[in-house]
Amino acid sequence: MPNRLGPPLETPLFDRIALIGLGLIGSSIARAVRHRNLARTIVAIDRDDATLARVRELRIADEVTSDLAAGVRGADLVILCVPVGACETVAKTMKASLKAGAIVSDVGSVKASVIAQVQPHLPDGVSFVPAHPVAGTEYSGPDAGFATLFLKRWCILTPPEGTDEAAIERMRDFWSALGSDVEVMTAQHHDLVLAITSHVPHLIAYNIVGTAADLETVTQSEVIKFSAGGFRDFTRIAASDPTMWRDVFLHNKEAVLEMLARLNEDIALLARAIRWGEGDKLHDLFTRTRAIRRGIISQGQETPEPDFGRRREDP
Amino acid sequence: MPNRLGPPLETPLFDRIALIGLGLIGSSIARAVRHRNLARTIVAIDRDDATLARVRELRIADEVTSDLAAGVRGADLVILCVPVGACETVAKTMKASLKAGAIVSDVGSVKASVIAQVQPHLPDGVSFVPAHPVAGTEYSGPDAGFATLFLKRWCILTPPEGTDEAAIERMRDFWSALGSDVEVMTAQHHDLVLAITSHVPHLIAYNIVGTAADLETVTQSEVIKFSAGGFRDFTRIAASDPTMWRDVFLHNKEAVLEMLARLNEDIALLARAIRWGEGDKLHDLFTRTRAIRRGIISQGQETPEPDFGRRREDP
Ligand SMILES: NC(=O)c1ccc[n+]([C@@H]2O[C@H](COP(=O)([O-])OP(=O)(O)OC[C@H]3O[C@@H](n4cnc5c(N)ncnc54)[C@H](OP(=O)(O)O)[C@@H]3O)[C@@H](O)[C@H]2O)c1
Ligand SMILES: NC(=O)c1ccc[n+]([C@@H]2O[C@H](COP(=O)([O-])OP(=O)(O)OC[C@H]3O[C@@H](n4cnc5c(N)ncnc54)[C@H](OP(=O)(O)O)[C@@H]3O)[C@@H](O)[C@H]2O)c1
Repeated sequence: MPNRLGPPLETPLFDRIALIGLGLIGSSIARAVRHRNLARTIVAIDRDDATLARVRELRIADEVTSDLAAGVRGADLVILCVPVGACETVAKTMKASLKAGAIVSDVGSVKASVIAQVQPHLPDGVSFVPAHPVAGTEYSGPDAGFATLFLKRWCILTPPEGTDEAAIERMRDFWSALGSDVEVMTAQHHDLVLAITSHVPHLIAYNIVGTAADLETVTQSEVIKFSAGGFRDFTRIAASDPTMWRDVFLHNKEAVLEMLARLNEDIALLARAIRWGEGDKLHDLFTRTRAIRRGIISQGQETPEPDFGRRREDP
Repeated sequence: MPNRLGPPLETPLFDRIALIGLGLIGSSIARAVRHRNLARTIVAIDRDDATLARVRELRIADEVTSDLAAGVRGADLVILCVPVGACETVAKTMKASLKAGAIVSDVGSVKASVIAQVQPHLPDGVSFVPAHPVAGTEYSGPDAGFATLFLKRWCILTPPEGTDEAAIERMRDFWSALGSDVEVMTAQHHDLVLAITSHVPHLIAYNIVGTAADLETVTQSEVIKFSAGGFRDFTRIAASDPTMWRDVFLHNKEAVLEMLARLNEDIALLARAIRWGEGDKLHDLFTRTRAIRRGIISQGQETPEPDFGRRREDP
């Protein structure tokens, strides 16, 4: 994977790109597209005037509008960057304005549901290439975005059967230009993989933070004070946007519940090992899990610095 | 809490401090004691000659020895920095050599069990002041330590009833000098608080990483590649020392199992909300949990930087 985003292209990949939803992801795409000159014109579409005003101030788009139908008109590439639960409404609202030959894509964290929501509304001659950049932070909105968010991260494309190969290739080039490595898989497999690598970790984090807040025997103030023992790590992803994550769980139900059931089985075995004092079983598991982190670090998906590289005080 | 460790004391707090176990915690104490001149002499005791050789190279102790009984002789303060399961053996081995009036302390992540292991072996005239600095990283050994590990972190003292008040005050001064805020509570309460803020988060992290490694439907290589979706956060604490953590779970069984049962109840409710599409319940929880992180950040126990301040690439 590249180390830097690289210089602006001499010839942009697209003439006109319309981004719908200028939050963390949408505004990061805008910044990276501008940095690399991937489009002659960037159109920012958002329902919220305050967001649009901020996008203007940040100068990350060439045109801004709250009119979805008008905004997508003439665009070669339209990317939905809204919570997955909002995709069907967006698709319905824009369908009549899409240009023939346009590519529609998205960035949603769930894929099968987004396909089901969007695909039926697209006119013939428009290609749908669903995408999911596996990159993010716990912050939201246009100020949270940055151009290198996708650099050295994976972007998964999940084109439905029969999708135009040329459109898939153009989206592969697009995400490569944003610094990502691209992998293609089915939407069903994506949703299973992300259930374990993203959705269930978020659910577990939300759960443990919620439980800790509600205990009668330990106060919230104690939980906060003594959080450096490990708990605080979980609070980061449990501070992610509630709407985005509600939609993820509602739209990837089966895979999430399946992975959760699997985790529950394994935690029951661990609890049993603790109850019966089976130290070797615990030690074995705790040794095996280190290899996974080593793999993640060696593949450049994580920092080897202690404590995630959290800032250390000088003595 | 202080921002810096501060200058060396003119008069050390102790004449001779013996540290047993020069790993992450022991070697961090040695560095901080030296930096602040808290002892005239630092004695490093470790069973492993390689560790002792490294301690000599690092120049973080004045004397090094693998002879536990000889090492503690004449010390005013002896601190056990070994896994909690090793405390009883250490206590038995050193008891005959302890100086009258000495303070014995420890840094174990579990407190009631350490008291039960150590207290019965201490001669009259020796005070036991158990301590737990709530600070650490996922790395181990003498090279992992650093002087500011305890700066702006909490240290919990759990003196058994009847402990000499003067000894408690000296340990409070000691940990304050290492930059920590000190809180006193019972060992039982400590073990409950840490079960939720540290032990169960580690268990859950080990569990999710272990489960992910064993799935048939998703490969390990996929788990590693797409870990930036949230999973990688859990792998940090799941890379912590297996021996230390085995001992924590075996020695804080009841509290860990109690908190785990509580989590299981709550996750069952969440699973139900997902199954029945109760978006509001999910949204409510996901909103509440953000407040806890804000509290942790505002109390200086966590960085507000996105993504824990993990390094960002330049465009
Ligand atoms: N955050 C991550 O880590 C991450 C990573 C990969 C993929 N994703 C996916 O990226 C998408 C956007 O997430 P994000 O993190 O960028 O969220 P965000 O910062 O909260 O931005 C969401 C954007 O969508 C708009 N929006 C929200 N609800 C809408 C609705 N019902 N109709 C129309 N627009 C609506 C918002 O408009 P306002 O201006 O009114 O707020 C905002 O511009 C989601 O599908 C998410 O699953 C997120
Ligand atoms: N790591 C944390 O985040 C953290 C935070 C707060 C408190 N603690 C507590 O601090 C203590 C030490 O942890 P650490 O992180 O410093 O671990 P570490 O880096 O692995 O160091 C452990 C030290 O104990 C020695 N040791 C291990 N088993 C022993 C035995 N059976 N008999 C005698 N010595 C033995 C080791 O000797 P070798 O030289 O032979 O390896 C090493 O010097 C533990 O009780 C832990 O619960 C840890």
